[in-house]
Amino acid sequence: MYDTGKLREECGIFGIYGEPAGRSITGCVLNGLYALQHRGQESCGIAVNNGGEITAHRDLGLLSEVFGGVFGAEKLKSLGGGQIAIGHVRYGTTGANVRLNAQPLTVNHIKGCMALAHNGNLTNHHALRKNLELSGSIFQTTSDTEVIAYIITRERLRRPSIEEAVSAAMDHIKGAYSLVIMSPRKLMAVRDPFGFRPLCIGKLGDCVVFASESCALDGIGASLVRDVEPGEIVIADHEGLRSIRTHCGGRTAHCVFEYIYFARPDSVLDGVPVQTARQRAGAFLAMEHPVQADVVVGVPDSGLDAALGYARQSGIPYGIGFIKSKYIGRTFIEPGQSNRENLVRIKLNPISATVSGKRIVLIDDSIVRGTTSARIVKTLRDAGALEVHMRVSAPPFINPCYFGTDISSREHLVAAHNTVEETARIIGADSLGYLSTENVFKLNDRPVGGFCAGCFTGDYPEAVPEVRECE
Amino acid sequence: MYDTGKLREECGIFGIYGEPAGRSITGCVLNGLYALQHRGQESCGIAVNNGGEITAHRDLGLLSEVFGGVFGAEKLKSLGGGQIAIGHVRYGTTGANVRLNAQPLTVNHIKGCMALAHNGNLTNHHALRKNLELSGSIFQTTSDTEVIAYIITRERLRRPSIEEAVSAAMDHIKGAYSLVIMSPRKLMAVRDPFGFRPLCIGKLGDCVVFASESCALDGIGASLVRDVEPGEIVIADHEGLRSIRTHCGGRTAHCVFEYIYFARPDSVLDGVPVQTARQRAGAFLAMEHPVQADVVVGVPDSGLDAALGYARQSGIPYGIGFIKSKYIGRTFIEPGQSNRENLVRIKLNPISATVSGKRIVLIDDSIVRGTTSARIVKTLRDAGALEVHMRVSAPPFINPCYFGTDISSREHLVAAHNTVEETARIIGADSLGYLSTENVFKLNDRPVGGFCAGCFTGDYPEAVPEVRECE
Amino acid sequence: MYDTGKLREECGIFGIYGEPAGRSITGCVLNGLYALQHRGQESCGIAVNNGGEITAHRDLGLLSEVFGGVFGAEKLKSLGGGQIAIGHVRYGTTGANVRLNAQPLTVNHIKGCMALAHNGNLTNHHALRKNLELSGSIFQTTSDTEVIAYIITRERLRRPSIEEAVSAAMDHIKGAYSLVIMSPRKLMAVRDPFGFRPLCIGKLGDCVVFASESCALDGIGASLVRDVEPGEIVIADHEGLRSIRTHCGGRTAHCVFEYIYFARPDSVLDGVPVQTARQRAGAFLAMEHPVQADVVVGVPDSGLDAALGYARQSGIPYGIGFIKSKYIGRTFIEPGQSNRENLVRIKLNPISATVSGKRIVLIDDSIVRGTTSARIVKTLRDAGALEVHMRVSAPPFINPCYFGTDISSREHLVAAHNTVEETARIIGADSLGYLSTENVFKLNDRPVGGFCAGCFTGDYPEAVPEVRECE
Amino acid sequence: MYDTGKLREECGIFGIYGEPAGRSITGCVLNGLYALQHRGQESCGIAVNNGGEITAHRDLGLLSEVFGGVFGAEKLKSLGGGQIAIGHVRYGTTGANVRLNAQPLTVNHIKGCMALAHNGNLTNHHALRKNLELSGSIFQTTSDTEVIAYIITRERLRRPSIEEAVSAAMDHIKGAYSLVIMSPRKLMAVRDPFGFRPLCIGKLGDCVVFASESCALDGIGASLVRDVEPGEIVIADHEGLRSIRTHCGGRTAHCVFEYIYFARPDSVLDGVPVQTARQRAGAFLAMEHPVQADVVVGVPDSGLDAALGYARQSGIPYGIGFIKSKYIGRTFIEPGQSNRENLVRIKLNPISATVSGKRIVLIDDSIVRGTTSARIVKTLRDAGALEVHMRVSAPPFINPCYFGTDISSREHLVAAHNTVEETARIIGADSLGYLSTENVFKLNDRPVGGFCAGCFTGDYPEAVPEVRECE
Repeated sequence: MYDTGKLREECGIFGIYGEPAGRSITGCVLNGLYALQHRGQESCGIAVNNGGEITAHRDLGLLSEVFGGVFGAEKLKSLGGGQIAIGHVRYGTTGANVRLNAQPLTVNHIKGCMALAHNGNLTNHHALRKNLELSGSIFQTTSDTEVIAYIITRERLRRPSIEEAVSAAMDHIKGAYSLVIMSPRKLMAVRDPFGFRPLCIGKLGDCVVFASESCALDGIGASLVRDVEPGEIVIADHEGLRSIRTHCGGRTAHCVFEYIYFARPDSVLDGVPVQTARQRAGAFLAMEHPVQADVVVGVPDSGLDAALGYARQSGIPYGIGFIKSKYIGRTFIEPGQSNRENLVRIKLNPISATVSGKRIVLIDDSIVRGTTSARIVKTLRDAGALEVHMRVSAPPFINPCYFGTDISSREHLVAAHNTVEETARIIGADSLGYLSTENVFKLNDRPVGGFCAGCFTGDYPEAVPEVRECE
Repeated sequence: MYDTGKLREECGIFGIYGEPAGRSITGCVLNGLYALQHRGQESCGIAVNNGGEITAHRDLGLLSEVFGGVFGAEKLKSLGGGQIAIGHVRYGTTGANVRLNAQPLTVNHIKGCMALAHNGNLTNHHALRKNLELSGSIFQTTSDTEVIAYIITRERLRRPSIEEAVSAAMDHIKGAYSLVIMSPRKLMAVRDPFGFRPLCIGKLGDCVVFASESCALDGIGASLVRDVEPGEIVIADHEGLRSIRTHCGGRTAHCVFEYIYFARPDSVLDGVPVQTARQRAGAFLAMEHPVQADVVVGVPDSGLDAALGYARQSGIPYGIGFIKSKYIGRTFIEPGQSNRENLVRIKLNPISATVSGKRIVLIDDSIVRGTTSARIVKTLRDAGALEVHMRVSAPPFINPCYFGTDISSREHLVAAHNTVEETARIIGADSLGYLSTENVFKLNDRPVGGFCAGCFTGDYPEAVPEVRECE
Repeated sequence: MYDTGKLREECGIFGIYGEPAGRSITGCVLNGLYALQHRGQESCGIAVNNGGEITAHRDLGLLSEVFGGVFGAEKLKSLGGGQIAIGHVRYGTTGANVRLNAQPLTVNHIKGCMALAHNGNLTNHHALRKNLELSGSIFQTTSDTEVIAYIITRERLRRPSIEEAVSAAMDHIKGAYSLVIMSPRKLMAVRDPFGFRPLCIGKLGDCVVFASESCALDGIGASLVRDVEPGEIVIADHEGLRSIRTHCGGRTAHCVFEYIYFARPDSVLDGVPVQTARQRAGAFLAMEHPVQADVVVGVPDSGLDAALGYARQSGIPYGIGFIKSKYIGRTFIEPGQSNRENLVRIKLNPISATVSGKRIVLIDDSIVRGTTSARIVKTLRDAGALEVHMRVSAPPFINPCYFGTDISSREHLVAAHNTVEETARIIGADSLGYLSTENVFKLNDRPVGGFCAGCFTGDYPEAVPEVRECE
Repeated sequence: MYDTGKLREECGIFGIYGEPAGRSITGCVLNGLYALQHRGQESCGIAVNNGGEITAHRDLGLLSEVFGGVFGAEKLKSLGGGQIAIGHVRYGTTGANVRLNAQPLTVNHIKGCMALAHNGNLTNHHALRKNLELSGSIFQTTSDTEVIAYIITRERLRRPSIEEAVSAAMDHIKGAYSLVIMSPRKLMAVRDPFGFRPLCIGKLGDCVVFASESCALDGIGASLVRDVEPGEIVIADHEGLRSIRTHCGGRTAHCVFEYIYFARPDSVLDGVPVQTARQRAGAFLAMEHPVQADVVVGVPDSGLDAALGYARQSGIPYGIGFIKSKYIGRTFIEPGQSNRENLVRIKLNPISATVSGKRIVLIDDSIVRGTTSARIVKTLRDAGALEVHMRVSAPPFINPCYFGTDISSREHLVAAHNTVEETARIIGADSLGYLSTENVFKLNDRPVGGFCAGCFTGDYPEAVPEVRECE
């Protein structure tokens, strides 16, 4: 598989309580997950609870690989029906055992079954795991979800209910976590007190739905009720919906990169439409880094909205500068090392009619290593662009993230080791401009401080480990 | 698989003569075909000629399914190397035998081997086939490519060379055909005298490349030399490149729908950039059917360029109104009948931030049955659009095509049975406007008459059969 | 895949006319083919005729791979029902195009559709093919079945019926052929005038069944009516069963190796039970090559009956000396070159309880290259055998076969280049004895001359080509 | 998949310590497992330890499906090399989650990694599991192997070494267990104090090998050293081989059905060749239940040795009465309900030459439900047998097994509800005779009491649960 040169989110989660009228519950989960596939493409799974019995299927691959086709449809059908179901899409580390890490995690304990789907990253994962091991626990996965399952299980032994066990577990776990948890008779949505990762509540007829992003609600025809509050536990059971808010009320730290890149533009996160935030980023960029040019083009797909924002603000015409191939999937295997350089043209081909003989403002949402950007700039020049002025709808990415994305060290971050001018030279652009950190906090209307922008600023909302504790 | 509500092109073809320096010849064909996958997604194949021995692999499925993954890479590798190679992507009729119809077709005759890849449709297919049968021919496929192979073979018996046999065969076959033909030592590109389907010539180092569209040249890093002329046979062999032009010089009839929908916007067909033609269509639409509105949005992907053209001409802001899912592939199997209605939201979700509370100009390239358009209009209203004014960047589609697309009768064409006002009501739009036939001929700078627009006008460049003669 | 060191039959064929009460016609063909799988394991196919429309599926692989499992069951189901159906299992040459050679071959000609399944080898294949090419024929496979289809088609143009065309075609084709041929309304079974390969007629309720061996009749619960006579064409249609016998009555030449190795012991070929012939071969061996020993063991599976015949004749106890693994399939890929030597122990492990400390008579049906026999002898000695006296239930194999088996030259035949004593030394046996050619003709009760034993004697029933004309 | 009408063993295990010269360690495990495939065909897995890091692959399917073919070979290769490796083949309950139950189980605990492969069944599984749950354990599988892993882990916290933890764990677990356990630097073989399931020690160069049966040693070219003693822990590490024998010395209870049916005839279990035991069973049967007959035929494969023993003892000729199809695999899906009755003829066809017109002694190793036996008797009569006298080389099977086979209740056991005469009538035999329980204890030379024959006698060597505690 080719390197996309992009940051990767760790996961997307989905849960539904109730039997949707005239529809299959697993079909709803699958449709919801399809809308979240951009959040995780390495493995996926669905677990369904039928009268307290949990059946699950999870495997490596896209949803269309695991649940599509003749085999996949058989698998989906074999899950049967139920009253509660959850699902998960995931990025993760590679390795022979990685199928084990596919979620939802399903476990049995003294009170029956439990299934969990997790999006985030615990900062005290290793310490918690060591403590559990010291009391005789065994681990079959390398994911921190198993740690969470253990801690809830231990708390459950001395708490009257699963939701109180979850609440007690929240005293122990630190970092970013958005969870859906299914017990024999309840479905819970849990969000860490900072609200790093998104999680929202929807309604589909009499059913309650939880999803990482509101686009998954659209995907099944559900309506958005509200977001799960940072620190909130929302419980859906036969009595309806209720909350435990003992961990609510602190400082929030929504990941700003959800708005810039991770989330889908048709989602609304914590009240802010993602598309609006991106167009605003483009407009800020136009104000911060103006340039004389003929056309503004965005790198598809995530750079398009910022490009439109830049164009509108600057008055420079918006153009469609690239064709992105839909057909080169993850199954692509490069036919011969020497064909590799052409890959960028197969994946992303500039359109000469738009770029030839033009001065281009090129908008992307990030520069990670710089190699992908360099290739894109070169294809534009090969297609006849006179000048290429790159504008990035985020500040320079110079610090590791400990809260659920896959950049674990500064080593490969081009912006961490080069000035803006050096970076421009490395990627071959005539000029380069990043969004300022001041403006990144203005992507929504909230007061400064509601965001985590540690990857740009190094200022994290809570203590981070000496060594990054993820898989 | 869901019905896309779109017309479907029949095929894309690719050929290369020569061994590309430092690269595998089959890898080049595969990369070229990836760039042509939009022209055919039901089957694909590659044939390689190594010293006069042809090895081929073809199967049902996308390129990523047939030549991707572990198995596909094995298949590609098993083809070995060679000095000439051709490839094909295809739509076609369904049915148990359809794998047989996958191309390139490989045959052996008295002069050795031959492989053909064909894009088009012969209008006298049935008559030719019957004549061949009367002289004892047997047919193993239902494709007209096999008819072409027979006729060339028969002519070859009394002609001194394969190219003269091909030229003689052109006296017999009628209709639309763009072909690449590989003999033991030559590669030929052939285009029917009307030039219905595109075909171009490229150069990659010392290699000659033929492809349906120039985007396939970009895909392998080749440069566009020129288009194959209507009626021309271009022969590549060890002596270089030469042409037979005995069938050249007549009236041309390039399919106008290649510009409107089939071709990729980054391709240049017969000298006209596809993107330019589409933006021009949008501009004409704005002049023909102006409307008071707040934002112009295109239906992705093929409606985007016309939407930009409309926006620029009208002064109404261009907006990004939809998210199109990349993840719901052809392998999708609907989980329960009742979930079907939500499919359109999974595939194509409107972005409220752009459409809510707005008067929308919605641009698409065609309306076939009307059901897809109706669903799209409805999702816009559900997302809060105040008004939806649909504009179609083509005239009403009211006649069958005999030249290589898959609309065989007027029966299901909504525009063939309804006025524009009725159609607007059927699809739920506040207003509806089509591009005029006058303007469709102005999508490039050529004089009227260079296009075939029979699907709009009923005026075909040559006699068409009583009954449409395709599979 | 490992080399089995065995000769390989080319094919098995099956056909049914009529709709079996309460059963699916394709299910019957599949069950019949399962019983013939030993005759061909590289590809298989089924063609079904529903009202004159033929639908077929054929692919590389075992029946359980092509028609088993979830995918295979879908394929079988997609064939639908019908009134006539034929099937085929096949060995063949390897190569990229080999899927094309899978049968039944289905073709269309002026009189409609035709499907053929062929077991045998034409000796004048190349000459016939060249003549066809000279009149403009094209070939899409390398199999001689396509040649037969052409010749029948050409004759059909000037004959009033398909059966008369088949009869006329038999004047042209030479060599070994057992065929089932399906036309729009008829099913025919055809056997060459020498009757090289077996072919029998069965009855299942009102249905007529044709099969290579009677075990396929058992497999579907049909009863054996009689064998197709050498030279006979048997036609099943709505008028019942009738024959054309214009090519009957000459000298017959049944392949003697069908009795020795190819056929299943539960089949009865041309009136002779295969098991009886094998046990008789063992008894002859005991008379020709007696030895002092403690136990007689056969190499499973085909050596067991001859071993029992030897034991009964000699009075030496019969023993079960080997376990043959059922689990190492054709999909086996050797994990590392160095593990190869152990493969024979995984596939065929001697049982110490029977062989340790014993003088062994080891019975096998043939020695081809000698390497497999050498490995088997060695494993017996490793397991403690004191002496190993090998007895082969056939004469030395020293000539190529032109009539449907896969030994094309004498080059690798150990018996063609070594005396019996030398061969014994090569394989490591204490002694070695072959069945005499005199006795091989007595394996059934027919007069000498009814068999082809050209592979042993070099005396072929008809002229053979200078160069072996098979794929 | 069809019901075989046979009891099913639960598992086969294999382990190797050391790097085999010139061979891959995973290739050795795979070859060993191929020889054990008869002990488990539903799932399989291999775990390899490279410097303390364990990599594993396990999945549903036969070894040829999971580790064969292009994909399987990739999987095997991806495991890499190592210094210790274990493997497992398994039967088990069906269900959506069953892939989770595939072994070896790999876990991490405070002392590092551990992998276990288990053959057997704990009788106190449920009680142990409940206790573990009460202390906060979570379970991800339903297999008792996970219980064993937990108990060892808990003991490991307070024991100085893994082997002492295993020894302490043996104080808690009851029932049948043969285990191979891999820690970061050691490989252990453990057998329960009764020695229900077999387990042996082999030597391959400098490597130590453990396997369920000695045929797996043959399969990799290793030599049999001795059996693991009941109650023994054998530890292989860099210091060599040593034992803990604190649980040795009690009454042994080897499963007698291993000799009668489960084990391969080429294995030697606890000093007794399986083939010898089976032939002895046949001889006892001949003495206990003589009959006037013409031929003795065994039901392949497991009835053949007893048939030979019966024939030798009785003087009635041994015959080869059936052909068993090798080609109808587990992937077989029945083409239409009505074809089902013919399945027995496709799987097992009688050979008329042997059975027609004869009085048959039919030997099989067991009758479970009776339906399979009835079908076999019927096919013999259809093939012309005059009389069928069934003899069973085991006593009537009338009690559940708690020690690792899959008969959980008496409900479906024909012998539990019918007299011998009634059973004979049910299966359609002219007479029926079972081996006596007296003689079943004489299948080897050990004193009565060394066997467990609880399934025949109801006399179990240790307390069994009220309700059978298996998955």
